[in-house]
Amino acid sequence: MKKIHIVGLGLLGGSFALALKQAKPDLIFTGYDANAKNQADALTLGIIDEACEEPDADTDVIMLATPANTLTGLLLKYLNQIGSNTLIIDFGSTKSKLCKAVANHPKRAQYLSGHPIAGTEYSGPKAAKADLLDKKVFIICEMELTDVHLKGMAYDILEALNMKLRFMDAEEHDRHLAFVSHLSHVSSFMLGKTVLDKMEDERNIFDMAGSGFASTVRLAKSSPAMWAPIMEENKNNILEALSLYISNLSKFRDKIIADDYEGLASDMHKINKIGDILDLGK
Amino acid sequence: MKKIHIVGLGLLGGSFALALKQAKPDLIFTGYDANAKNQADALTLGIIDEACEEPDADTDVIMLATPANTLTGLLLKYLNQIGSNTLIIDFGSTKSKLCKAVANHPKRAQYLSGHPIAGTEYSGPKAAKADLLDKKVFIICEMELTDVHLKGMAYDILEALNMKLRFMDAEEHDRHLAFVSHLSHVSSFMLGKTVLDKMEDERNIFDMAGSGFASTVRLAKSSPAMWAPIMEENKNNILEALSLYISNLSKFRDKIIADDYEGLASDMHKINKIGDILDLGK
Repeated sequence: MKKIHIVGLGLLGGSFALALKQAKPDLIFTGYDANAKNQADALTLGIIDEACEEPDADTDVIMLATPANTLTGLLLKYLNQIGSNTLIIDFGSTKSKLCKAVANHPKRAQYLSGHPIAGTEYSGPKAAKADLLDKKVFIICEMELTDVHLKGMAYDILEALNMKLRFMDAEEHDRHLAFVSHLSHVSSFMLGKTVLDKMEDERNIFDMAGSGFASTVRLAKSSPAMWAPIMEENKNNILEALSLYISNLSKFRDKIIADDYEGLASDMHKINKIGDILDLGK
Repeated sequence: MKKIHIVGLGLLGGSFALALKQAKPDLIFTGYDANAKNQADALTLGIIDEACEEPDADTDVIMLATPANTLTGLLLKYLNQIGSNTLIIDFGSTKSKLCKAVANHPKRAQYLSGHPIAGTEYSGPKAAKADLLDKKVFIICEMELTDVHLKGMAYDILEALNMKLRFMDAEEHDRHLAFVSHLSHVSSFMLGKTVLDKMEDERNIFDMAGSGFASTVRLAKSSPAMWAPIMEENKNNILEALSLYISNLSKFRDKIIADDYEGLASDMHKINKIGDILDLGK
C-alpha cells in the first residue's frame, strides 16, 4: 500500500489523513475538495501531498468523505473507473441507500461501507485533528461483500488508526443512528432555535448557558451542508425517531399540565439508567 | 461574620461550604439535611463542622439549598425565627413564587434571593466540589429589597467565592431559566427515553454514543428529586418553552416530509449563530 486518494478534505477526511500519515509516514496522499478554499487549506496543512480531482491509476485506497447525498454518485463513478487493485471506502453517516445502489455493481467487492463514530461540531480541514479517530468505533456494513484481499488493506489502515471495529447490517445501522445520532442533532438545533426565537438579549443566553444549555445545544453549531443531506438520506428513520421524540415530549407536557410530579419523577428515575449505559466503558 | 448554617447538604450546599471554607478558614459551618446519610457524609467530608437541625442564634447567614418546592416553607419558617442580624440566602432555580411568598413579610429585608448558574448532572454531598461555583454567574433577584448591611455580608461571601453577579427581576429570571436551563433538561430526559424505548441493545447505544448523543443526553442523569419540583415551581414558563420547542420540532419534521432540505439547511444556518453566543466569553 503506497497511495491514498481522499475525496472531501473536511473534518473527517482531514483527520483520517493526519492520523494515517503519523502511523505510516511513507504513504502518499492525494486528494480533492469541491470547495477550492478547503482544498488549498488541506495542502497547506499537510493533509494531502498533492491536489488532483482524479486519483492516479496506482491508488490503493480511495476514501470518500463528502456529504451524505453526494456519496452514491461518487461511489458509482469511481467504481466504474478503478482498476482491480483499488479499494473504495466511504465515511458516510448513512449506509443503506448507498449499499443498495451498488448491490448489483460488478465491482461491488471493491467497496467497503464504513462509518467512523467520531466528529465534532466543527467542520472543514482546519478543524481536522490527528487524534479525532483514535480509539473510536468504526462500523462496517455488509463486510462479507468486500473482497477479502482488499479488505485486508482496510483492516491494516483501521488498525493503524487504532479504531475499534463493529459489524452491522446497513439498515440496522441507519435505524440505530437515527436514534442515537441524528435525533440528537435535530433536538439540539431546535433547542437553539427555541431559545433564539424567545430571548432577545444574547448576554442573558450566555450568562445562563452554564446550567446545562451549553452541552445540550452544542450540536446546533454543526454544519448544515453536512446535516441537511443526512436528513434526506435517512429520511424515514429520522421521521420515526422524531415522531417518537415529539410524542414523549407531549406526554411529559401533559404530566406537567396535570400536576403529576410524582409521575414525572418516576419517569426521570427510569431514564437515569442512560447514565449507566454511557459509563459502560469506564 | 463567623457562623454559617446550611440547609440541604447536596451538590450546591456542599460545594458552597467547601469553597467558602478555603477562602475563609475561620468560619464555622453548621448544617442539616433531611436525608440522614447525606448529613453524615457531609460531616465526614468536612462540608460542615457540626450537624444540627436548627441554626444557632448567633448564625450570620442561613443558606437554603434544598429542592425548589421546599424553599418557600423553609424560608418562611426561618424568617419567623431569626434575630435581626441574620441573613437568609437561597440557591433555588426558580425565584418568582418564593419572592411573592415573602413580599409582605415583616423581615423581607433579611432575605437575599439568589441563584448560582452552576451544577453538574450529579447530586449529593459526595458530588460537591470546591471549584464548582468558581467564576460562575450568581443571579440576584429583587436586590433592592434586601437590607443594605446584611447584603454587604452576602457580597463579601460571593466575592470570596469568585462569582460574577447579575441582577434580574424574579419573573424575568424564571422565564429565561425555563428556556435556557429547564427546557434543556426536559429535552435531554426525553431524548434518553426515546433511545431507551427503541434500542434494546445497550452495547449499541454505548458504541454509537460518541456521535453527539453523549453530550445532548448528559442532563438525563440529573436528580429527579431536584428536577420534578422545578417543573412544579416554574410550571407555566416551562409549559410555554416546551410548547414552542414541540412546535419547532414539528415544523422541522414537516420540512423533512416535504423534502425541503434547502429550507432545513437555511434554518440550521441561522441557528448556527448560537455558537457565537456561547463563545462570547472566549
